[in-house]
Amino acid sequence: MIRIGILGYGNLGRGVEYAVEANEDMELVAIFTRRDPASVKPRTNVPVVHADKAAEWKDKVDVLILCGGSATDLPKQTPAFAKLFNVVDSFDTHANIPAHFAAVDAAAKAAGHVGVISVGWDPGLFSLARVYGNAVLTNGTDYTFWGRGVSQGHSDAIRRVPGVKDAKQYTVPVPAALEAVRSGANPELTTREKHTRECYVVLEEGADAAAVEKAIVTMPNYFSDYDTTVHFISEEKLQRDHAGLPHAGFVVRSGATGKDGEHRHVIEFNLKLDSNPEFTACVLAAYARAAHRLASEGAKGCKTVLDIAPAYLSAQSGAELRAALL
Amino acid sequence: MIRIGILGYGNLGRGVEYAVEANEDMELVAIFTRRDPASVKPRTNVPVVHADKAAEWKDKVDVLILCGGSATDLPKQTPAFAKLFNVVDSFDTHANIPAHFAAVDAAAKAAGHVGVISVGWDPGLFSLARVYGNAVLTNGTDYTFWGRGVSQGHSDAIRRVPGVKDAKQYTVPVPAALEAVRSGANPELTTREKHTRECYVVLEEGADAAAVEKAIVTMPNYFSDYDTTVHFISEEKLQRDHAGLPHAGFVVRSGATGKDGEHRHVIEFNLKLDSNPEFTACVLAAYARAAHRLASEGAKGCKTVLDIAPAYLSAQSGAELRAALL
Repeated sequence: MIRIGILGYGNLGRGVEYAVEANEDMELVAIFTRRDPASVKPRTNVPVVHADKAAEWKDKVDVLILCGGSATDLPKQTPAFAKLFNVVDSFDTHANIPAHFAAVDAAAKAAGHVGVISVGWDPGLFSLARVYGNAVLTNGTDYTFWGRGVSQGHSDAIRRVPGVKDAKQYTVPVPAALEAVRSGANPELTTREKHTRECYVVLEEGADAAAVEKAIVTMPNYFSDYDTTVHFISEEKLQRDHAGLPHAGFVVRSGATGKDGEHRHVIEFNLKLDSNPEFTACVLAAYARAAHRLASEGAKGCKTVLDIAPAYLSAQSGAELRAALL
Repeated sequence: MIRIGILGYGNLGRGVEYAVEANEDMELVAIFTRRDPASVKPRTNVPVVHADKAAEWKDKVDVLILCGGSATDLPKQTPAFAKLFNVVDSFDTHANIPAHFAAVDAAAKAAGHVGVISVGWDPGLFSLARVYGNAVLTNGTDYTFWGRGVSQGHSDAIRRVPGVKDAKQYTVPVPAALEAVRSGANPELTTREKHTRECYVVLEEGADAAAVEKAIVTMPNYFSDYDTTVHFISEEKLQRDHAGLPHAGFVVRSGATGKDGEHRHVIEFNLKLDSNPEFTACVLAAYARAAHRLASEGAKGCKTVLDIAPAYLSAQSGAELRAALL
């Protein structure tokens, strides 16, 4: 059995708790938290331990899955906990991956551990689709579409607008753009042409709807480059119709081969997820297995999904995989 | 530069000739053939060498890409040429992969070479999609659909029917079945419910169309388990409208997570190819790079796509991939 620990018990941590149950060769041995452990109530009866006492679990956890956020938690936590454990995280700030890789690599190598970073679906499975697609169709173009799904970052940005009580934001691919890409037409697309943004907003009592709408649609970085629609709804309706965290997305590599590129080819990878955190947790669990195996073979340092052979993710042996899935 | 050799100059070999040109770190150094070399006219001015003289090229070729058929060529050729070179093949008889793996592994290990087998899209990229999908969604179901595209094996089977002068067979996924799978409904589907078969047939002069049609649609293994339609057309029309070798396909993993599997997730990988052999050749070229790198690191023996980390396929460095594609 691979002994798994979780650091952080939010949506993602709860997802990992389910994912470990769904893998017969894994057992969850502890949840670590920075909160008062007595305040954390896991669904299963796994021990809850304060993060400051993690060192006491050094020999009782094979892989620690970090379930914090990329903005402030993981840049500190992943290198720190790589000194104690093999670790897996879902660091998803694309621009900062090289720096995060370097920090985790140094810590993991010094301690003789394996750290797998940026595991999930983007970065993660979508990165795999991009790398395989680029390697195969060298003469081609990449497209990534996200949605229809909830963006937590954009929902949070709306909640910071004065007069907003609560909000959910959906990122939505433009159907015509997606169809053009899938057809192999290789279109050049602006940000505005690829995605629209739909906002469901609950106003505070007495708030000025027109002012809130203007503040949202003109917000730089988040909304000003998109066609954004704002729907004002009641708190009850938000809770009833928009409580979930669904997401979806598409990676397309479109390219050409042969005489003067006469033959066109389209490679597409897409996901449709009822629960973004539960799915991300499943990917983390599979890469925890890989981290454990790599460490058992003597590997050290930081890895990403690009560095790990697919067979390491599976509980089946190489011979079983060749017979059943190849 | 990675020095590539090709064994066999049919549709696939010609595709590899294009694929090597599309990879800046590769050069094609020789085409090996069992025919009279003078009778083989490559598109580029690469030397054509009789296969019996391949041993003379032992130190001049880094990776030999085998472009023969799976029925009779590759089971003999891949183990034999693994004694001389690092090799990559597209062996696609799924049921015989374990035996082929064992034969190539023994030959490659004895000679200190790397042999990568069953490279292409199925087996190949579709196998990757199945293994990643199974590892992530452990509680789920696999579906593979092929088409719309030309099946060479089924076209050949029709050509063997008395009274048939020429033929092309298209494998076609049933749209309703594909949509049910994509919706996450997890349907149980029979062979007949998943695919139909469309046949375009040129009759010999004086042949009995009704007898030919009956012989096709009742043919065991190839057609009797499918809804098959037979269209009789002229030779001119076959050459005008059915000269290409397009193909397509879909791998779907559909699964559930969370409390009582309340959340459903669908992972889909699909391809749409104007030229099946040219695309397969691109996959072979990417895995030739991986074979060269693995051999340079001292690896020996047989590998499949499941054993090779994605980064090995790319001409870019790990740091470049992390910055640009992760």
